[in-house]
Amino acid sequence: MSEFDLIAKYFTRPADCTDLSIGDDAALVRVREGHQLAISTDMLVAGTHFFHDADAYQLGWKSLAVNVSDMAAMGATPKWTTLAIALPEVNEVWLAEFSRGFFACADAFNIDLIGGDTTRGPLTISVQIMGEVPTHQALRRDGAKAGDDIWVSGQLGNAALGLAYWQNKITLEGVLGSAQLEICLSTLHAPQPRVALGLALINLAHSAIDISDGLLADLGHILECAKVGAEIHLKDIPCAAYIKNHLHEKLMQQCVLVGGDDYELCFTAPSNQREMIKQLSQKLDLRLTCIGRVTAEAGLILYGLNNEVLTLASTGYNHFA
Amino acid sequence: MSEFDLIAKYFTRPADCTDLSIGDDAALVRVREGHQLAISTDMLVAGTHFFHDADAYQLGWKSLAVNVSDMAAMGATPKWTTLAIALPEVNEVWLAEFSRGFFACADAFNIDLIGGDTTRGPLTISVQIMGEVPTHQALRRDGAKAGDDIWVSGQLGNAALGLAYWQNKITLEGVLGSAQLEICLSTLHAPQPRVALGLALINLAHSAIDISDGLLADLGHILECAKVGAEIHLKDIPCAAYIKNHLHEKLMQQCVLVGGDDYELCFTAPSNQREMIKQLSQKLDLRLTCIGRVTAEAGLILYGLNNEVLTLASTGYNHFA
Repeated sequence: MSEFDLIAKYFTRPADCTDLSIGDDAALVRVREGHQLAISTDMLVAGTHFFHDADAYQLGWKSLAVNVSDMAAMGATPKWTTLAIALPEVNEVWLAEFSRGFFACADAFNIDLIGGDTTRGPLTISVQIMGEVPTHQALRRDGAKAGDDIWVSGQLGNAALGLAYWQNKITLEGVLGSAQLEICLSTLHAPQPRVALGLALINLAHSAIDISDGLLADLGHILECAKVGAEIHLKDIPCAAYIKNHLHEKLMQQCVLVGGDDYELCFTAPSNQREMIKQLSQKLDLRLTCIGRVTAEAGLILYGLNNEVLTLASTGYNHFA
Repeated sequence: MSEFDLIAKYFTRPADCTDLSIGDDAALVRVREGHQLAISTDMLVAGTHFFHDADAYQLGWKSLAVNVSDMAAMGATPKWTTLAIALPEVNEVWLAEFSRGFFACADAFNIDLIGGDTTRGPLTISVQIMGEVPTHQALRRDGAKAGDDIWVSGQLGNAALGLAYWQNKITLEGVLGSAQLEICLSTLHAPQPRVALGLALINLAHSAIDISDGLLADLGHILECAKVGAEIHLKDIPCAAYIKNHLHEKLMQQCVLVGGDDYELCFTAPSNQREMIKQLSQKLDLRLTCIGRVTAEAGLILYGLNNEVLTLASTGYNHFA
């Protein structure tokens, strides 16, 4: 099977919003007037981001979903994607499942796969995503302002707990029920990017980021870009009851503060938007929780369950530590 | 050194044509009115596309140049690029050289590096490029028409000969001078994408492709997309005198017909444009040679040096053969 056959069989689908899709030197698309093009890319490497025996369908979903999440964090509508993939061999069962997962995510968000590259090498998946955002209205990290509320969508910690369990670092049988374990693992393996939330936050929020590296690290990026600080409260950070009540305190803190991979949004908004944000939460049927506020003074202060100031040794994952 | 430090030190430069560059969830750019966005991606894997001990500067140049070449083949102006790279370790000497080569190519073509991803893994370089092309004027493969002349820029075979020499598959000492060897190796390691030619071919040519997989394979893509055939003449294919006169006939054919990596353009144009194309050749100081014509009947017929019909066992490289 040649790389061209492989692309034709597993990676070619009709592309609705695209002038010229896979099969030429480049794809051609048109960006709507009054919009900027938003562009992001993420690379997933076997052994670094996922296990060599990872479920191919979930890996296909996640490869695209983590990129879609970057569009959500900008308030952009994802529209087009390219996929460059290095494969150690042609395994048609694996390819069929991987592409099924990739296109399931593409279909869920109306994204066209418009190009790519398929080659031989250690399993590596490089996805780029492009979307549209109304000019000058993107949710930039540097938009955070002192006095803003800090909000988080959904619940944090499920993916990190799922990962620790998956890696056999902890035992959860007897602590969590099988349905709860399933939530943790599906958050880890098949994250749900918050695109509808990102779109709705345009004109409501001042800044946003998706939580991929952990709340402290990602909120830290906002603070650094906007040259502001923050106070947040551990007791307010939304997490499942089994995380809050059944885990050792250290593990709970690791999961909700440092663990990444939940792909929820963290955003800041002026306090006069609280009512609008509550209504948005109902409309989207998605929990939105205020966890603190932005301060003029630099630095991130974290208050523990008894209002004591907490200090953590590490705030996020570093690939080259 | 964290991945953020690494990005800041080696991969962050002012981005002139970009609204928001590296450092947020996504970059933001604007596509000029009346233009389509052209998008392409290429992945280079150590051990597959280059040797583990490849010169880092040249690898940086080539990683971007092969993508720029795809823009040239569409008649697009390259403008933005993203770089996702997996590194086995942080080697600052290597990174400094790689990024110097990458930015040398970016500067040569006024391209902004606007985003990327840096992670740990087997050395893999995934570059995406984006450019602008006037709406409906791109040089698509499917535009070739029966009766068109088939043209090739520059000379073919240098990169393939350089590769065979580099891999110790052939001995060239005594056959080629050191300056000629240098031309072969620099074509292989530091190809020059034909952007100015691609731009000038809009409204002159019916179709174009860059020769990355070899003339027969790449011309074959045009024929397949346009549902036409072609007759080409080996004696007309432009190559260096040392390839035409000093190599065994089989090796010469391999180099100019099957060897890829020259990144010249192959294009088709109506015969009433011959004079314009000759003028263009002078203006760009770039050899442009007519090597045959497009036929209505499918199939690629290759005439040898004595006008005999030639048949070749293989027409190009297949990563999964």
